[in-house]
Amino acid sequence: MENKLRFGVFGGGSWGTALVKMLSENQNKVGWYMRNDSAIRHILKEGHNPNYLSSVEFDVDQLNLSHNIDQIVEASDVLIFAIPSAFLDGELKNLHVNLKDKIIFSAIKGIVPESGLIVGEHFHNQYDIPFENIGVITGPCHAEEVALERLSYLTIACADANNAKLVAQGLKSDYIRTKISDDIIGTEYAAMLKNIYAIAAGIAHGLGYGDNFQSVLMSNAVREMKRFIDRVYKMKRNINNSAYLGDLLVTGYSTFSRNRLFGNMIGKGYTVKSAMMEMNMVAEGYYATKSAHLLMDKLEKKSKTPIINAVYQVLYKEKSPKKVFEKLTDKLD
Amino acid sequence: MENKLRFGVFGGGSWGTALVKMLSENQNKVGWYMRNDSAIRHILKEGHNPNYLSSVEFDVDQLNLSHNIDQIVEASDVLIFAIPSAFLDGELKNLHVNLKDKIIFSAIKGIVPESGLIVGEHFHNQYDIPFENIGVITGPCHAEEVALERLSYLTIACADANNAKLVAQGLKSDYIRTKISDDIIGTEYAAMLKNIYAIAAGIAHGLGYGDNFQSVLMSNAVREMKRFIDRVYKMKRNINNSAYLGDLLVTGYSTFSRNRLFGNMIGKGYTVKSAMMEMNMVAEGYYATKSAHLLMDKLEKKSKTPIINAVYQVLYKEKSPKKVFEKLTDKLD
Repeated sequence: MENKLRFGVFGGGSWGTALVKMLSENQNKVGWYMRNDSAIRHILKEGHNPNYLSSVEFDVDQLNLSHNIDQIVEASDVLIFAIPSAFLDGELKNLHVNLKDKIIFSAIKGIVPESGLIVGEHFHNQYDIPFENIGVITGPCHAEEVALERLSYLTIACADANNAKLVAQGLKSDYIRTKISDDIIGTEYAAMLKNIYAIAAGIAHGLGYGDNFQSVLMSNAVREMKRFIDRVYKMKRNINNSAYLGDLLVTGYSTFSRNRLFGNMIGKGYTVKSAMMEMNMVAEGYYATKSAHLLMDKLEKKSKTPIINAVYQVLYKEKSPKKVFEKLTDKLD
Repeated sequence: MENKLRFGVFGGGSWGTALVKMLSENQNKVGWYMRNDSAIRHILKEGHNPNYLSSVEFDVDQLNLSHNIDQIVEASDVLIFAIPSAFLDGELKNLHVNLKDKIIFSAIKGIVPESGLIVGEHFHNQYDIPFENIGVITGPCHAEEVALERLSYLTIACADANNAKLVAQGLKSDYIRTKISDDIIGTEYAAMLKNIYAIAAGIAHGLGYGDNFQSVLMSNAVREMKRFIDRVYKMKRNINNSAYLGDLLVTGYSTFSRNRLFGNMIGKGYTVKSAMMEMNMVAEGYYATKSAHLLMDKLEKKSKTPIINAVYQVLYKEKSPKKVFEKLTDKLD
């Protein structure tokens, strides 16, 4: 179904590529900003992203590709951001056009380091976007399975149900089911927290804990996630819905998750620094751990978050993963 | 810590073997009934079970092994049953001694076909055991990881907290943590239902659904499990505790689970009969599916159980897994 809104995706990574693919199923034209100009030239010539999900073929006539962020913002009503949270602020600094009247959806999992805010709050605070025009697109959804057109379910959260519906309409297709929600804070925190729990799962695996422990860890993680999110923003939500528990599971059980891999290396004895160098990137859960810890730390009435605390001790306090996790096992049930 | 109660384990399979190993860490003597006399002779001679968890070494002086069920019942105060539910009634028919005054714990997942009851209810109804003396031992716990002494958490449920504590004391060790619960009905139904959901996960995998869908399926499964159990016996319980969600995850995500394997074969096109013949056994979830369906069917006010219904249609109504699961995807979110 053609949607009259013009969509623009910001980011040339695997999740950005997957979002452009989803939109291309419905929209005549999709805006696509990415920084890497040689990737743009490759896409225009060969019809696929050379660096991410390269099996996905695009009809280049459908794409409005540019490495000029202003141009894609101007050509779009709905801006979908899929730039890693650590780079978002830097990219937005290149903006010279106004974001007023734009509908802004975040497909980013994590905290913007410069502001310490989740992405929705960042746009609200720094760019004066009203919350009705801010939303979140969340999984459980590995981009790689979108490339394979394997059935996936997205949750589209926005305080304004109409905006959520419009974006859902733009994304849904034979292989994408959508569900709308009004819990933008909760879904975005869940998407961020799950990366911390994936690091925890990786550390446990690296230390030699098995599947029995992993399931106990995940069972405790979803209860901890509920306490954390309820503490930050209390509302009626079922933490077992796909956007919370489902997203936790797809990441926590994935052997491809970069967060889980990062944790696994730490559990096997790599230092934080050497694991990052080996991976040639920083797992988003690394920043999320610090942000989540800071956030809880400054609250007067804290929630019990033993798993986040354990990951924080290992990543930021150079504590022995073995000892920290031995203590953690006493706090789980 | 030595426990003054005398424990007897009934069943020579992998779970029975794991339970005897756990008890052997604490008890001077452990009773162990199994039908297979040649396996008993092997254990007495070689110190390990030839058929299951054969890497586990026993101190045979600690074991009171017999293929005479009466003898092990008489020598035990706490009877732990780990006989597949399909064979339980047949084994119990060989009993000539009274079960009165015994504490009976079930480590069995499933329904006794002859009575249509879960194991705790079967002992209560057929043998007049008061509910205070009936309990459930539940995971998440693959027996194979007990053999490897990998940290695992058990939930010991009994209406009488003191009995639960005594059994927990008997089972806990360096690698076994225990938690007690008073929800014998809920934990036992959860242990049974998870096998149905593992079959569903297997069917989906066999049909080519990916990890994104699997996480949505599990997120829906735990919500369905909660509705089902609340409908059967309403009480205050957190469905995300290890005995419910954890047990679901360890089975639903295990590539070794026989139930998941069975489902996988069905999804790949085997008939139910040929899958059973190929596996040379009947997965417990096969019976559980029928029992769960019957149970819901006879209730006036049914819970919504689309996953159980889908598995039932495939296993018992010879419906096409592909078509049934296509319809199921519309009911999940």
